[in-house]
Order: sequence, then structure tokens, then C-alpha cells
Amino acid sequence: MTLNPADESFAARLRQTLPEAVFRPTEPRYLEEPRGRWAGQCGVLALPRNVDEVSALVTAAAAARVPVVPYGGGTGLVGGQVMPDGPAPLIISLERMAAIRGVYATENLLIAEAGAVLADVQEAAQQADRLFPLSLAAEGTARIGGNLSTNAGGTGVLRYGNARELCLGLEAVLPDGRIWHGLSRLRKDNTGYDLRDLLIGAEGTLGVITAATLKLFPRPAAEGTALVVVPNPQAAIELLALARDQLGEAVSAFELIAGQGLHFLSETLPEIRQPFADPPDWCVLIELGLPRGQDPESALTGLFEAALERGLVSDGLIAQSQSQRAQFWSLREHIPAANRRIGAICSHDISVPISQIPDFIVQGGQVIAALGQFRINCFGHLGDGNLHFNVFPVAGRSKADHANQRDAIQGAVHDLVHAMGGSFSAEHGVGRLKVADLERYGDPVKLAAMRAIKAALDPAGIMNPGAVLRG
Amino acid sequence: MTLNPADESFAARLRQTLPEAVFRPTEPRYLEEPRGRWAGQCGVLALPRNVDEVSALVTAAAAARVPVVPYGGGTGLVGGQVMPDGPAPLIISLERMAAIRGVYATENLLIAEAGAVLADVQEAAQQADRLFPLSLAAEGTARIGGNLSTNAGGTGVLRYGNARELCLGLEAVLPDGRIWHGLSRLRKDNTGYDLRDLLIGAEGTLGVITAATLKLFPRPAAEGTALVVVPNPQAAIELLALARDQLGEAVSAFELIAGQGLHFLSETLPEIRQPFADPPDWCVLIELGLPRGQDPESALTGLFEAALERGLVSDGLIAQSQSQRAQFWSLREHIPAANRRIGAICSHDISVPISQIPDFIVQGGQVIAALGQFRINCFGHLGDGNLHFNVFPVAGRSKADHANQRDAIQGAVHDLVHAMGGSFSAEHGVGRLKVADLERYGDPVKLAAMRAIKAALDPAGIMNPGAVLRG
Repeated sequence: MTLNPADESFAARLRQTLPEAVFRPTEPRYLEEPRGRWAGQCGVLALPRNVDEVSALVTAAAAARVPVVPYGGGTGLVGGQVMPDGPAPLIISLERMAAIRGVYATENLLIAEAGAVLADVQEAAQQADRLFPLSLAAEGTARIGGNLSTNAGGTGVLRYGNARELCLGLEAVLPDGRIWHGLSRLRKDNTGYDLRDLLIGAEGTLGVITAATLKLFPRPAAEGTALVVVPNPQAAIELLALARDQLGEAVSAFELIAGQGLHFLSETLPEIRQPFADPPDWCVLIELGLPRGQDPESALTGLFEAALERGLVSDGLIAQSQSQRAQFWSLREHIPAANRRIGAICSHDISVPISQIPDFIVQGGQVIAALGQFRINCFGHLGDGNLHFNVFPVAGRSKADHANQRDAIQGAVHDLVHAMGGSFSAEHGVGRLKVADLERYGDPVKLAAMRAIKAALDPAGIMNPGAVLRG
Repeated sequence: MTLNPADESFAARLRQTLPEAVFRPTEPRYLEEPRGRWAGQCGVLALPRNVDEVSALVTAAAAARVPVVPYGGGTGLVGGQVMPDGPAPLIISLERMAAIRGVYATENLLIAEAGAVLADVQEAAQQADRLFPLSLAAEGTARIGGNLSTNAGGTGVLRYGNARELCLGLEAVLPDGRIWHGLSRLRKDNTGYDLRDLLIGAEGTLGVITAATLKLFPRPAAEGTALVVVPNPQAAIELLALARDQLGEAVSAFELIAGQGLHFLSETLPEIRQPFADPPDWCVLIELGLPRGQDPESALTGLFEAALERGLVSDGLIAQSQSQRAQFWSLREHIPAANRRIGAICSHDISVPISQIPDFIVQGGQVIAALGQFRINCFGHLGDGNLHFNVFPVAGRSKADHANQRDAIQGAVHDLVHAMGGSFSAEHGVGRLKVADLERYGDPVKLAAMRAIKAALDPAGIMNPGAVLRG
């Protein structure tokens, strides 16, 4: 079924039903994505102020068979936010729908519009003495509608779950332009198919999320952070089990850091203070969030002593102040920036069953070594089985030198991940970058069901064409 | 589109591709449901032993346009497991697919076949020193496939979530007979639409769940239970907030019990020991599950003292032994049995936003009083905003005396719930009992999307026809 561009005549029709204030001239930022792999196009840029305007826009696009690209903060890493080819789309940016519609502290929830910046949602929760635990590097720019559309992960998943698990209800405009009013404040509601979880993670291909009910949590009364040296990834996994055994759900982050990452940091960002004079091969950043009456330092000391006895750690630092906590986290959070300065040949956002992580790291290294001389920086959310396994040139060479090897490296890593029962996209989604991976590795029956659902809800195929499923 | 009965000729065709051992003569238990509202029918009863046999059965049913009713433990309360009219169905009971395929303690998960009894899943987790937290009255009979198909709730939802939140992956046979191999052991996997959450809660109308990957949790090192008297439901809600503030996620159950329930218990089950000589109007059963090194008694005492100071409790008992813990839980768990002996005119499984619970209880009482003289037993999962609000005749009258008022009472309660932004089915599902409620109260855009999804995945409408959506 062919689509039509959002051309002058379509723009003119839109202006008959929607106020002029909704429309803006295109700016480059709507056509770029962080990895610079694609340049988007734009026929019409609309910045609606409420769900009725979103509905009117999508209704018009459906009638005219014009593609629609929903736009959040633009921080997605798989090109879901840019449509580089085909008829020029109507881009609907949610940035003017950024209100927190209500905070219900006793119910531990708030209702945010899709355009609310993630950091502002966190802030609204904090003002009500609650925690909204979704946390990721782009939180100052990413918008909650995009976080939900991509089922964002981040550092809080271990304890609190992905974006999907933090959402109780949605308001959304479906591909025919109709509004689904699903902003439930209920914890339990078993009345029909789970449309919410279908839209979450659909990357804008099944509709436009316009608002969401989000779960809040008690803020931990005390937090503690430690950076510990482990002999190898297997020990890190055993340390996590020990930590959960001793501390239950209080373990709120458990991030693996490779020595390579620390070396990249000292090379490219020497101003970031490093706690170990000699970067260890592997260390783990542990964060605890404890209820009242429990002392993080003694909890971390107890864990460290028990781990030392079992040979799971060899050294470690417990943060003694807020600024030391911030320093440890800054180490973790600047790893992607250091990676960018070195210049990865390719990045992988993979997950495998947690017990397979050590094997994956070993075999992944072998697979890469068989293809040539490279450096690997492997880091991430160990507790979730999710690693960012990024491949770099050796010192003195550049990623451009290896451009023709990128596909082979990526294919080798993804083949290995697939053979281990893992995923080629743990948290970033499919977007446009991984459509072929989904076709190659996805279960064919699931793919057929996805295509049937897409055709049923979006028969003209107007919603974010080319993302997730081939158009 | 008309369906055909699972008649002799269909049975003969099935026997050409499937071994004789798969088939059994029908027994009455497959045609009954706990509330005795419907009598099912059965054309062919099949007890497949593996997913390939399920696939062959559904493939044959799809080719012949024969309705299929998936059957678990038969404990559902909304008639989803019996098809009382239309062409006699093929009943597929999963009871012979009851294996625990694997327990992965370090990954905190296990893989169970759909026919595994819930209590056996709990037991398998316990043997690996883990907790599978789904817990409900029917756990000795209910099977995990049915629990997932209905997104079961129960007493552990407050801390651990519904069945949906406890599932990482599924193996299922879709309505065309094809097998979806989705038994992921991954915590994070963002590769396409969430087919898992779509099948969970679809009550067998989108396919047959044959196995599931289930999340396990650390077993709490120490548990504590208290039964406290609260002046009113509002105080109970404030007590819950206080408990979470003091104890974080350690609060694993928070069940409201009305004085009426205790009176029903002494009337019908006098052998159940009651801790209070004079049943209080409202009390709350609190359960804590604590990690190592924390003492439940001192945690509960601390909570009780703080609550006493704020006037949130007036009396209370902290269980001093395992047998006293069991005694408190027995009180809560026998309320449904006492209700059955009294004989409810109608039951409601409702949820409202948690802060609205006190208003709902007051207004619900007024709505019922306006219809005549009745007794109300209101109890349940307060922390989830989920109450079982059941209406009984006054002493000396029977439910039969009020049979003609049932619809009016139910309508009045559900109207009130709907006006408060609540749900007419918090945890039991829609089944056949609440199809009209879904049509009346459900969001029309969501309903249209559900019908489109049903038509896309099950174009012939063979899967559990008449459940959830009108056939």
C-alpha cells in the first residue's frame, strides 16, 4: 500500500482543522539521531498542545495515507525517530505536551504527558517525597513518551524494572486517530487484552503515546555506593547473588566495569578522578537503597567481608560522602563519552541468561580476536544480563580503518548471542538499525503475529513506517 | 463466521494424526465451574503430553473451524473455562504437561509447563531456596497456565506483582496451530511487540500457553505477621503508607478484614480460632518478609508503636510462632469459605484508586442500603486497591430470596466503581461472566483494538469463543 508525502496540499488541509500555532518550520534537530547513521526528512512538523490536536493530526494523516513519525527527546540509539527515505512524513513532536497532570503520593503514582523530560518526571516524584526510578544517561533530554515507546532500561532495572514495569496506564492516539483513554490509577485491572504493554515498546509503530500513569516508590531513606574489584565476571555474578541474599531488594544497581573502560577514561577524560591507581581488570559499582534504620556503610562492609572470605572481591571502596558517591557514578556514566572519543567500530546492546555472562565475555573475545586485532570495552547492567559489548580499533588505528569489517563483527557477536539464547537488543529497541537482525534472529511465529497485529491496528501502515517491521 | 462442533468425524480426523493416548472420555469436572453458573459442553477431550501435540490439535481445529477451550485447573471464577453454548468444543486440558523443565537458581527463574499446579511451582522454587510469590486460595488446584492466562493476582501482588509481572517468557500455540518459542531466560529483551503480555490475560482467546519462564525471588530470611485493629479503612491506608515508609519493600501482604467477615467465620466455621474476643469492625493482616539480620518482631513492634501514636491502630497482635502466623492467615483464607456457607447474593472483585477506597466503602454501603436490607462483607488486597465487596442477605433470609435483585445490586456497585475510575474485574478476569460489563464500562477505542487483534490472530474465532469478547 503506497503512502503519500506530507506535502503542501496536505499541510494546507491540516491548517483547515488545526490552529496555525501547532505548526513550526523544520529544524535540523528533528532530522538527526545521536549516532549519525541517518538523516531524517520532514514534510510537516507539528507540535500539538493536547491529545485532541494529536488526534486531529493522526486522523488527517490516516485519511491521506501520510506517514507519521512521533518524536520525543530524539535520544534513541537505533534510528526509530528519523525516517530517512520514502514519502516525507508528518513529524509529531510531543515537546509541548510536557505537563505533570497530577501527582498522587498516597497512591504512589503520577500522571505525566508524553513530552515531559525524564529528569522532570524524576523531579516531580522527588518533590512528593517519592522515587521515579527510571534512570539513564540521556535523562536530561529524553522524554517519557519516548522512554515508554522504546521500553527504556537503564541502571534501575535490576530493582524496579524497565519502563514497561513502571507504567500503570496510557493515553494514546491509535493509527486511525481515535483516542484511547487508558490513564488508569489502578494497580490491578483484568479487563481485557493488555493494550498498554503492546504500545509500550512498539516504537511508535502502533500509535502515539500522549500521556502515562507512572508508578512511584518510597525514596530510600539511606543510600550507599561501593566500587569493588572482582577477579572475573563469574565472581561478579556470585557477588550479586550474595548481595541479594544478604540485602534482598535493597540492591538497586550492580554495574560491571571493565579495565578497558577505565583506560579509555584516563586516555580521553583525564579530569574524571579514578579511585584505583592501577585500573583493575574488572570492577563492580554497587548501589544500595535502604529503608529507615539501616546503615548503608555497615551493610556494604558486611557484604564486602563476606565476599572477601569467599574470594569474590580483592579490593574495594565504600563511598564516604555524597561527593564520593557522585564520583563513583561519574566513572560509570562517563564510559559512553570516553567510548565516543575513542570511536567504536561497532556497539552491541546484548543480553544473555545471567549465568552465561562469563562464557559470553570469553567467547565474545575469541570471536572478535578471530576477526583481527581489536580492543573490547564490555560494561553494563550485569544484574539484568545486559552488557554493552563495544569493539574498538587498537591504539593508532581509527574506526574508519575497519568500516568494512563492521558487519562481520556485528554478525559474529549477534550470532553468538543468539546461540546462547540471548537478545541482540536488550534495551535500545529495534528502530531502523536492527530490522534485519529481528528478521534474522526473531522467532518466525512471533514475527508473523507482530505483522498481523500491525496490519490490524494500522492497515495503511502510516505509523513510523520502516521502524521495527519492514514497511 | 460459523464454527463447527467437535463431532465424531472431527474426532476421527484427530485420531489420524494424534495417538489414541491423547484422548479421554469427558468427565463432569471439565464441564463445571466453581460458582455453578454454567454447565460446559465437550465434543472431544484431549490431554496432550507435549507442545507438538497441542500444535497438532489446534491446527486440526483451525482447519475444521472447531472451537477450542484450553483447560487448566478449572478454578477460574468468571466462567472462562466452560463453553455452555454454541458448537461443542475441543477441550484441551494441559494437565499432563506439568513438568518443571528447569530451575535456574542463579538466574532466579524456572521454566514450568502450563499444566504444573501452582503449589508445585512454589515447591520447586522452595527446593532451590527461592520464592515463587504468586499465592492464592486455589493454589493447590490451579495450574500455572491458567494463572497466566487470567493474569492471576492473590496476596503477593503488593510486593511482587500479578502473574504478568512474574513471567519472563512463554511457549504458546497460536490460533493457527503454530508454536511460538518464546521461553526467554532474559531479563531484558527489546526486540518487538510484547506478545507475551498480550497472551497473558487473554483468557485463552488468543492461543494456548504451553509453558512459561517464571521469575523467582530470594526467600525472605525471616517473616513476621501481625493482625492489627484499625479504626476505619482510611487509617488502614495511612498505616500502609507508614509501613512502607519504615520498611520499604519488606511489606509483602496487607489484607483488610471486615468485622462482618469475622462474624461470618464464627457463625459458619467456629473451629477457626479467632484472636479477638469481640470482632473489631476493621482489622488488617500485615506480613513482612525481611532479609538476613533483621528481626520481624522488632520491625512490627516499631511499626505498631508509631501507628499507635498517630491513632492509626487501637489494638494488635504480633504472631509469636509459626503456628500463630498460620492461625492469622487461616482467618484470612477461610473468609471465602465462610462467605460460601452464608451464600452471597452477588460478589464483586473491584479495584479503585487506593486513596478512594474509604469513599468507595462508604458509598458502596449507601448504594446497597438504597436497594434494601443486606449485609456486606468487604475484604481483600487493600494495598492493591482491590476489594472483594460481597453482598449477603440479612440473617434468616437466603440468597434465593434476592435472586431478582442480583443484577440491580451488581449494576449499582459496578456503576459506582466505574464513576470512581475503578475496574469491575481487578483480578478474576472477564471470562463469560463479565462480557457485558466489559462492553458497558470498557473504553470503546480499546475494545475496538481488542476486536481487531482478535480478528487478526484468530480470524476464524476458534479460541475460547464467547470469553472476553462476544463471539
